[in-house]
Formats: sequence, structure tokens, C-alpha cells
Amino acid sequence: MSGSDTASDDTSVGATSDGPPRALPLHGVVVVDLGQIYLGPYATFLMAKAGATVIKVEPPAGEPARRRSTVGRGASLPFCMLNANKRCVTINLKTERGRDLLLRLVRRADVLIENFAPGVLDRLGVGWPVLRAMNPRLIYASGTGFGLSGPDREQLAMDLTIQAASGAMSVTGFADGGPLKSGVAFADIISGVHLYGAVVTALFDRERSGQGRLVEVAMLEAVFPTLASNLGMLYSSGGKGAARTGNRHGGLSVAPYNVYSCADGHVALICQLESHWRGLTDAMGRPDLATDSRFSDNARRVANMDETDAVVAAWTATKSRKQLAELSVEYKFICSPVRELPEVVNDRHMHERGMLEWIDHPELGRVVLPGSPLRFHGSMREPAIPSESLGASNTAIFGEMLELDREELSRLAAEGVI
Amino acid sequence: MSGSDTASDDTSVGATSDGPPRALPLHGVVVVDLGQIYLGPYATFLMAKAGATVIKVEPPAGEPARRRSTVGRGASLPFCMLNANKRCVTINLKTERGRDLLLRLVRRADVLIENFAPGVLDRLGVGWPVLRAMNPRLIYASGTGFGLSGPDREQLAMDLTIQAASGAMSVTGFADGGPLKSGVAFADIISGVHLYGAVVTALFDRERSGQGRLVEVAMLEAVFPTLASNLGMLYSSGGKGAARTGNRHGGLSVAPYNVYSCADGHVALICQLESHWRGLTDAMGRPDLATDSRFSDNARRVANMDETDAVVAAWTATKSRKQLAELSVEYKFICSPVRELPEVVNDRHMHERGMLEWIDHPELGRVVLPGSPLRFHGSMREPAIPSESLGASNTAIFGEMLELDREELSRLAAEGVI
Repeated sequence: MSGSDTASDDTSVGATSDGPPRALPLHGVVVVDLGQIYLGPYATFLMAKAGATVIKVEPPAGEPARRRSTVGRGASLPFCMLNANKRCVTINLKTERGRDLLLRLVRRADVLIENFAPGVLDRLGVGWPVLRAMNPRLIYASGTGFGLSGPDREQLAMDLTIQAASGAMSVTGFADGGPLKSGVAFADIISGVHLYGAVVTALFDRERSGQGRLVEVAMLEAVFPTLASNLGMLYSSGGKGAARTGNRHGGLSVAPYNVYSCADGHVALICQLESHWRGLTDAMGRPDLATDSRFSDNARRVANMDETDAVVAAWTATKSRKQLAELSVEYKFICSPVRELPEVVNDRHMHERGMLEWIDHPELGRVVLPGSPLRFHGSMREPAIPSESLGASNTAIFGEMLELDREELSRLAAEGVI
Repeated sequence: MSGSDTASDDTSVGATSDGPPRALPLHGVVVVDLGQIYLGPYATFLMAKAGATVIKVEPPAGEPARRRSTVGRGASLPFCMLNANKRCVTINLKTERGRDLLLRLVRRADVLIENFAPGVLDRLGVGWPVLRAMNPRLIYASGTGFGLSGPDREQLAMDLTIQAASGAMSVTGFADGGPLKSGVAFADIISGVHLYGAVVTALFDRERSGQGRLVEVAMLEAVFPTLASNLGMLYSSGGKGAARTGNRHGGLSVAPYNVYSCADGHVALICQLESHWRGLTDAMGRPDLATDSRFSDNARRVANMDETDAVVAAWTATKSRKQLAELSVEYKFICSPVRELPEVVNDRHMHERGMLEWIDHPELGRVVLPGSPLRFHGSMREPAIPSESLGASNTAIFGEMLELDREELSRLAAEGVI
């Protein structure tokens, strides 16, 4: 049982806390993690937090996200976030003995995960066919920009270029401006969690079939489903295109749906159901708007979107963010302040739920780290263990797990193998 | 074995096509799907495509995403996308007999998934404690905006308001503009795939422990990890805030990293590694820039970001999107055209990989539907089965699975129970 010093998740409705806490669900699963930057590391972060033993394998110079620290300390924060609760070792896969070390780890592993460009491990002689022959129960997980097959397979990719290639950028921003990326790295993270899902699905399958598999996620494909509303608009337009709609609904089929100025900032507000609109108009003291023929159902409000936005905006301008948030709970419409990051990292709600933790990180000092968004009731949450320094677990993993003696470890280090 | 009429995934490197195709990994898993709009339906879409039997339960008037069709046919497309390959039944959970039908389904199910506001099913008398007592092997999955516990539990949420509450909106757009949402519904979809991951993890655990669980994902928490780069910048600023950086890196710690105009549109371009910068400067015919003291490593390029962007932009302006994409493959830097949605839905690459399919949908006509981003090598892909009309499987599921006779079904329909 891990994480036994944290509170059990027994505060929420229907928690299963009537017995002793159960082990985290991936307890005992061993993951060899060749992930780098965000995609692979996020997938294995979720595994570590779900109880797996994650051995993060980096080249002796560190993976690119670790090396970003040369730009400034803040650039290290993402690395620390996504690599908490892992064991860090170094292996130079360009050496014969390095590859041998990897093979020895893989023999003892359930999962190998990598997000190199397609074919990188094959060219090093440690691709899926080789690893599988050695360990038929292995789940081999590949995360790439465009996938392991298809005409665009060789195209390199990062979050930014996938936002461009997927069409997401073409529908972000305003109609009179240029294409714009989402300010957050959602393409990387959404791909990482898809890869997590693929791996765990294959682990479930292995319990029944006894066999491992190759599983694969392409970033381009993982982003596609986020276009749902925009594709609706494309369809409506006869396939000609979808507009950038600013803060309005991507399919322009819900109203009100926008960001509105208020007395001390902005709020996002939406009426998904007619009951939300009735709640909003009651909160405004304008129940007449709920039966006004311009606004009496969503189809009419969509047809009169500018007017709908205008009546909402005139009202929000008179209230504070806090007042609007409280009114939305009382009157049951959907509204949130547009929060800045300092508010988010200090969010009382996420701290109370154990999603955010203040920790003292040996390199960064006092920082907020997130836990896993996957909450398994009945088990304790895994508290944050700061990301390790480069190769910090070489002795523990190569020594204890692979039974190399101290002398051999020194020789491997001296020869640049680890 | 399902999907036996589609091509096996044997085109990619290392495919496991040397034996007969294996069943899809969730074959035999039965899911009762109370999901609505995007979050829940995306989680169960992934399950259906991974081989599970998904029984989508809607109120007799249809779930909100189905009802959006009143706005126009395009508004139905998201519903059709996310509800392919499911069986659609109707149950009025506000009736005693309706709840009884649900309980009978749950007795035969492995998973129940719902994304109502917290407590909705509890108040109807069919919450987790009740269902669990009846079926201790059940995985009960809850997707909500803020989670089942914590001070903000009662706040309603949709993709738009979670983009606001999570801080994502505060870092999207330009420094001199207001906060902006991402044009795609990434908060919904990223939460849906997290919920998928939680469910499958619990299924894996159940194979070992024999016990079901309550698993939970809060949208606010699922979005948090996408802030990684921006949190880096927040940290660098001493916690004061993170700027909106337009199309630049969210942490302003990588350069070049931007969207650049070209002869016929825009491209996104990034140099993550020094080798990418050398490749780019070679492609530009300007190898001198790679050793220029203003640009010779990422830290210097970050310090001289405006100049870095200017030299890149001056060059891209002279090339077409296609030329730049081809040069990026040849010279190994990272670049993609900013594509519009008509290009994306016709993308040869995703069609060749079987991710996108043209189908004739009974309501929408000829449309492109996506498959699952989760690719399980060794199994056939599940081809798209158009989303069913409201209650289309009532007879099949209630009649065959629950063994209700024709007369009883008619009575239930007449009484508004189904």
C-alpha cells in the first residue's frame, strides 16, 4: 500500500471507504519510460500516480525538457510537474552496453513507452519486434505526431505544429484576426492521456489473453475529436469552411455562450439548457426575457445572437466576478470567472481535494504540483515525490533490480554508458 | 471478433500481424452509458471502438446534444461523431419503472458512466452506493466540472466555463487583447479521455482484485496539466502572473516558436533541439545564423526572440506552405501548414490510416467520421456504425437482454417509461 500518509478519498458522496484502503490500481506494474518533453512523460506520470513503478530512462545529458533549464529556472517547472513520482536513470542507447541495459530492464517490465519519431528505436536495434520476441507480455506504447504509418509518418511534430496541422488553430481567435494557437499545450497532454488509456487497455487485455501488444497514439488523431462543434459548422456551411468565432460557440449553435466583461474582469457564461436561460433571466430580474420571442428558446437566441449577447453583457457589466459566480449557483446557470494563473495555483477547491499540493522541491524551492486527474475511490492518493535529478536512481535500479555490482556501475559511468 | 471486414493494422512498423487478428481489447465488456453532450459520450465512444458493448441510455426526449439538432442539421454532427458504434435506448429515470430498468441493465454491466452534476443519480435513488450493493464488480465512473467533493462541487460547468476557471483562457490570445478560449472543445474531450483511462484502469484492477470501484474525473483538474509551460512562466515571474503570448511558447522558453506568414497562408514552426535550428538555417541557405552569437543556442534565441522571429519570418514569406512542409522533412526542422478544416477532413494521411472514414449517415448524408485515436495493433479496427436514432435499440436491448416481452415494451412506451 503506497501513500498511506495521505487522507483517504472518503469525503465525496458514495466513497468506498467502508473497508481498509485498497492498493492503487496499477500497483506492481513496471514501466520503462523513454518519454520526453510532455507527451510520453504525462502518460507515465498518470501511471506513477496510479501506483505503477516508473523507471524514467534519459540519455546521459538528460531529455530535452530537463535541458530546457538552461533558459531559466522556470523552464524546469514543467519537467518537475510531469516527472514527479518516477525513478530517473540514464542510459546511452547509442552504445551496445547501453542497449543491453535497456533490454535487461525490458525483460522485467510490463510496459515500455516512447515518443521518439517513428523508427528511432528500430534503427537502434531495440524496436518492438526485438523487444516483443524477448518479452511477449510487453506492452509497447508509441506516441508520435502523425503515427507509425501513412504518408506523413516522417513529419516531425510538437504541440504547436499539431495545433496547426489539426485545424485547431484555424478556428481559434477572431474572424478578423489570424489563426491562433491555444495558449496551453493541450495537444501534447491530450495525446499523453490517450496513450495512457491505450496502455492500460492493453494491460487489461493481457490479463485475459496473456499477450502484450503494440499500442499507438498519433497527436494529430488525438486532437481531431476536439473539433466536434467546429465540424458541425463546417457541415452546415456545405463544407466550405468554419469561421473563427472568438469566444462564441465553435458551431455557433448555443447562445448565450461567450466571455462577458464584468465590473472587475471577465466571466464566461453559457446557457446549455432552457432551464439555465430561465435561471439567468431570473437572476437578472428580467423573467420577461425568457418568454420574449427573440430569446424564448436556443434556436431563437442563436438567430438573435448579437442581441442575446448585448442583454447579457449589459447586466454582467454591473456585477463583480464573485457576485456572478454566486448568482450562477443560486439561479442554476453556468458561469465562471476568467481566472488568472495565480488564482488557479492557489485554488482552495483543488487544494482541498488533494489535486494541488505545495511541496519543497530540491531544485525549485516551494512550488505547487498537481496530482493525477484520475481519482480512484477506495485507495489513498499518491503524494508528490519531487522529480529526481539526472540519473539519481542509477545505483538503485541498475544495482538492485539488474544486480550490477558497484564496480561495474562505475565502469559504465566512466565509459559514458550511463 | 468484430470489424472483420476492415483492413488489419499491419502497415506500420512492427505490427503484430503474424498471427490471426485478435479480438479488440474491450471485447465482452458491457457499458451502461448515461453520458451527455461531449465528456461522457467521448469516453464511451473510445470504449465502443475498443470493442465494448455500449448501451447509451437517454431520456425519452433525447440527451441535450441530440436535441441541439433543432438549431440546424450541422448541430447534429457532434452527436453523430461521438455516438457512433453504440446502441441507443431510452429510459425515463424519473419513473419508478424506469429506474428499475436501469438497475436491471446495471446488474448485467461492467461499467456505468455518467456526467451529470454531482448527486443527480443519488437523488434519484440510483447512485453509486445503491448500484454497488447490487453489483460489487461494477465500475461507476463520474465526470463532472469540479468533482464530487470540495467547496466548488455544486458549480455547473461546460467546456467554455472550465476554460475560464482553469486559467487556460487567461493565457490564450495576445498580450494586448482580452482573454480568449481555444476554438476547440478541448476541455470536454480531454476530460472524456481521462475518464476513459480511469475506467479501464479500474477494469484492469478488477481482473486482479475482483472488485469494482467508483472512479472520478473533474474537468477542472483534467485541464490543469495543459498549463505546464505557462506555469513555468508564472514561476519565473515570481508568481505574479503569466502573460498571453499569442503564438509564442507559453513559457517564452523556446525560439523560434511561432506562426509565420508565408506566400499562401501561414505555417507553425518550432526548433526544439539545436539540430532543428541547424536544419532550418541550412534550409534557409544561412548556415551562418547557426553560429551567429545572437542565435547560436536556444537560450540566446530566447533572449533575442524578436530578431529570431524576424529572420525566420523574412524567409517564410518567400515560400509556399507546401514548400516549407517539404523542406522541414528534408532538413529536419519542425513545421506545419496552418490547415483549414476542409483540408483536415480530407487529409489523405488520416484516411489512409483509417482514422477518418466517409460514411452515409441516415440523417446527415455523406459525412466524415473519426475512428478512435487509440490504435491496438494486432486487432482489426472497428468500422463506423452510424449513431442510432432515439431509442432505436429499445426492443433489442430491453427485449433480448432483459427479456421483456413485446406487450410489456408497448406498455412501457405508452406510459412514458421508455
